[in-house]
This record gives sequence, C-alpha cells and structure tokens, in this order.
Amino acid sequence: MRTTELESYLAARRQMVQAALEESLPAEDSYPPAIHRAMRYSLFAGGKRLRPILVLAAGEAVGSPVEPLLPAACAVELIHTYSLIHDDLPAMDNDDYRRGRLTCHKVFGEAIALLAGDALLTRAFAVLSQDQPGLNPARTLQAIAELAAAAGSQGLIGGQVVDMEAEGKPATLEVVNYIHAHKTGSLIRACLRLGGILGGGNEEQLAVLTRYGEALGLAFQITDDILDVVGDFQSMGKKGGVDAARGKATYPACLGLEVARRLARELCLEAQGLVRNLGSAADPLFHLAGYVLNRQG
Amino acid sequence: MRTTELESYLAARRQMVQAALEESLPAEDSYPPAIHRAMRYSLFAGGKRLRPILVLAAGEAVGSPVEPLLPAACAVELIHTYSLIHDDLPAMDNDDYRRGRLTCHKVFGEAIALLAGDALLTRAFAVLSQDQPGLNPARTLQAIAELAAAAGSQGLIGGQVVDMEAEGKPATLEVVNYIHAHKTGSLIRACLRLGGILGGGNEEQLAVLTRYGEALGLAFQITDDILDVVGDFQSMGKKGGVDAARGKATYPACLGLEVARRLARELCLEAQGLVRNLGSAADPLFHLAGYVLNRQG
Repeated sequence: MRTTELESYLAARRQMVQAALEESLPAEDSYPPAIHRAMRYSLFAGGKRLRPILVLAAGEAVGSPVEPLLPAACAVELIHTYSLIHDDLPAMDNDDYRRGRLTCHKVFGEAIALLAGDALLTRAFAVLSQDQPGLNPARTLQAIAELAAAAGSQGLIGGQVVDMEAEGKPATLEVVNYIHAHKTGSLIRACLRLGGILGGGNEEQLAVLTRYGEALGLAFQITDDILDVVGDFQSMGKKGGVDAARGKATYPACLGLEVARRLARELCLEAQGLVRNLGSAADPLFHLAGYVLNRQG
Repeated sequence: MRTTELESYLAARRQMVQAALEESLPAEDSYPPAIHRAMRYSLFAGGKRLRPILVLAAGEAVGSPVEPLLPAACAVELIHTYSLIHDDLPAMDNDDYRRGRLTCHKVFGEAIALLAGDALLTRAFAVLSQDQPGLNPARTLQAIAELAAAAGSQGLIGGQVVDMEAEGKPATLEVVNYIHAHKTGSLIRACLRLGGILGGGNEEQLAVLTRYGEALGLAFQITDDILDVVGDFQSMGKKGGVDAARGKATYPACLGLEVARRLARELCLEAQGLVRNLGSAADPLFHLAGYVLNRQG
C-alpha cells in the first residue's frame, strides 16, 4: 500500500462512516428539532473521522467485513463529539470556535449544547446495542462495556478532570502522561479494541491492537500539542498557542519541542512494528500511524 | 399484601439497591477523587430509589429472582441522578438545593458537576453491560437499547428540551403531556420494561408492564406537580411554588388542582387494574401505585 492507496482507503472509509453517521441520528426536523439540529451541527462539523476509521481498520485487520463494524464506528464518533461539545462549554474551556466554526453553545445556547452532548453520549449506546444480524450478542456486550469504561470517570472523563486541575500549574511528565492516556488515549485505544472484538479477533490479535492503540493515541496527542505550538488557524481551525496561554499541561511544555517530536516518531514506529505481525490485512493501520505522525491539522 | 407489608418490601428492596449502588461506582478516593466524590455526593443524596425498585418489582412480577435485576436497577438510578445534576446547572434550572441539600455544582463547581453527570450516565451503560452469569446476552442488549432510547433525545432529554422551551408560555395540555411523558415518563416506563425483559417476561406480560409504567409515570409526575403547589420545604426538600414562579408547564397550571388530582387517581387505579392480571407476584406493583398516589414528598 502506497501513500495514494492510503488516501483512497481513507476516502472510501470516511464516506462509509459519513453515511452511517447520517443514519445514526434522528432527522434534523424530528421533534424536538432544537436538540436534533444541535446534535447534527456538531456531528457534521468537518471532523476527520479518525476514530471510526480506526474501528473499521482494526476489524479489517483481523479479517472482518466492514458492515458489522459500522455501529461501533459511529458510537466512538458520537462519544468523541459529545466530549468536544461539553469541553467547549463556558464552565469548561469556554471556546468560541472549533474546527473554524462557532462552537455548539455559541450557536444554540448553553442549555441546548449541554443536552445535545448528553444526547450524543446516550445515542452512542443506542447505536451500539442495536440488533445486528452479523454479530454475536456476547461480543457486542463486551464492546459496550469497553466503550463505557473508556469514556467514563476512569477514562476520558478522568483525563478531563486532571487536565482541568493541572491548568496553570507546572506540568510534570507524570501528570501529562495521565491526562493524555485518559483524555485522548483511552477512546483511541477503545477504537482498536472494539474493532478487534467485534471483528472476531483472538486474544493475541487483540493484544497487538491494544498496544498499537496506546502508542498511536499518545503519538496523536503529542502531535496535537506540537501543532498547537507551531500550527496556524488555517490548518487547525482554531488559534495556535492556546495551550501555552492557558498554562495547559502538554508534552512540548514538559519535554521541549524536539524531544516531543522524537517521542511521537518513536511511538509511531513502535505502532507500525506491532501491526506488521497481523499481516497485509493490517496495511491500513500501518500507514495510518505514518499519517498521524505527519498530519498538519 | 397490606400497607405494612409494602413498607417492609420497600425497605428490603431499598437496602438491596443501596448496596448494589455502593458497588456500582469507584470508591470515593479513586483517582481522580474530585469526580468520584461528586458522583457519590449526588447518588447518595437520599433518593427514594423508586425507579430501581420498579425494575426489581417488574422482574419479580414475571417470576425472576432479584439478583440478576440489580445492574439494571442501578443503571436507571445512575441515569436519573445524572439528569438531576445537569438539570440543576446554572445553564438549565439553576437550582441551589435538591432534597434539602446543596446541589452538586454548588458544592463541587460547575465543571465537576457537568462531568459527574456525564460520568454517571456513562457508568449506567458500564453497569448494565457487565458480564452477568444468570442473564441472556441478547436480552441484556435489548435492555441497553431500551434504556438508551428512553434516556435520549426522543425520550428524557427531549422532554427536558420541550420543558425549557415551554417555560413562561401558556401551558397547553398537549405540551404538558409531551413533557411529562418524556421527561419523567419514559424512564419510569423503561424501568418496568427492563425488569420485564431481563426477568424473562413474555410479550403479553411486557405489554401489561409497559402500560402500567406509562400510567404510573404520568400519575407520579402529576402528584409531583401537585406537591410543588401544596407541599412544603420539610417534606419536599426544596421550595414549593417554584414551578408556578418559573412559569413551568404543569398539570395543575393546565387543568386546575382538582382535575389534576382526579386524573392522578384514575391513572393509579388503571395501573392497579392492569397488574391484577399478573397474579400475586405483582402485589408489590399493585401497592406501589397506591403509594405513588398518596406520597407526601
């Protein structure tokens, strides 16, 4: 698989995810329309769909067709979107822009944004628990349990809490590691595991996917921190230097830019080495690690 | 079953629920402690545990032992608690007190209260999807799907949205019906259905439980509205007359106090007539309908 092949793989998967996400929410004018408009506004705000594509690529790496993986792919994106809406609220980061567009509460007001986040989170579990002919109910239950754990108070939400508490304090590597392993890492790790579990992977394959997810998740967050320092509004869709201005705990703040860059590179190489063991079905995962490392926004 | 028997049934079930809820959350000092303290503060704030007891009573009515119903009982209470925390936030009802205690955000701040709500909602699905030896995975999946639908944008959250939108406007019966059928009704209906589904009930039993849940949920909300008009701080744990002061859409505002009282009574009688069909195993449900009608807080 060459770079152009990865690009067409990503484009094809993104299209499938987009279509499945369209189906995953009530129509915009379903009663009460205010909430469905807000949910759709944020879900279709131009995200790259990296997380759902990771679910699909992980399932494909263990030999699954794509179709039965789509509900789980939607579920992780719904959870990711809810976490962004709540993160942007005045009580949290108080952000006016996300991906170059006004944030949900700037458009729909705080109350509807709060409820839209709640509804997207709830919907994730509705979508994942829907009756799926090709899937084993016990595996689906396991996937739900893993997703709920990854998104919960000892996963994504735990990461948010420690991130908030760390603001404005000197960043220790231990704290930065916790924040990133939880706030970003736990959901990305869950993408890989959900794909592996629902795709019918064995224990060994699941262990490889899990470690790949951990390495990729950390590399993703480090490049995110680096882009916040060196990126521009054009490619990021938000202002750069925001983390530093807020005194956020980040890798560049903690290790310096050069060491952070090297660490991201090493993690991606590790991830690539790991999925080599899964054979050519894991080619997309192999190349995705390079894509994450070299992304510009 | 006499009144005293119902009381001892409720006390026994409440104790089981309380113990299961204790186990359903990470310990208070689990990292990060701020979130776990806030989650426990609101979950153990003296709720009557009506919803989880309805799950148990519905399962018992179709012949199930109590034990396998406990995760679902916890899940509905976790969702109920999250909805109260978010409902009390400044962006929503901006309430300082709930059940006579300071609300979550008054004690822990808005950001932690928001995240504690998110975490309780997420935890509901973690608890419900946990591996349960006595349960059929396909039925558990169905229960998860039903709970997610009941709590979502066309259930509980939809009811919140319409409730907000209706504030300060003349209350039509149609709007009040929608609000109550969704904001309160859909979760209570789900309690009955979850108990019936996980308890192994057949289609006919499930239909009876569903209609019982709809009638009881509406009666519950009407008595809640009435108590807001005639109750006092002592028994309600919050100020009376709040709904009227806010211009909330309620049954007494819409129908007058006497008609609202009569409607609540008729609904409870209907609920009681329905569960007579399920035999003596449904005695607790029968008497619970009377309890809801006559409650003082």
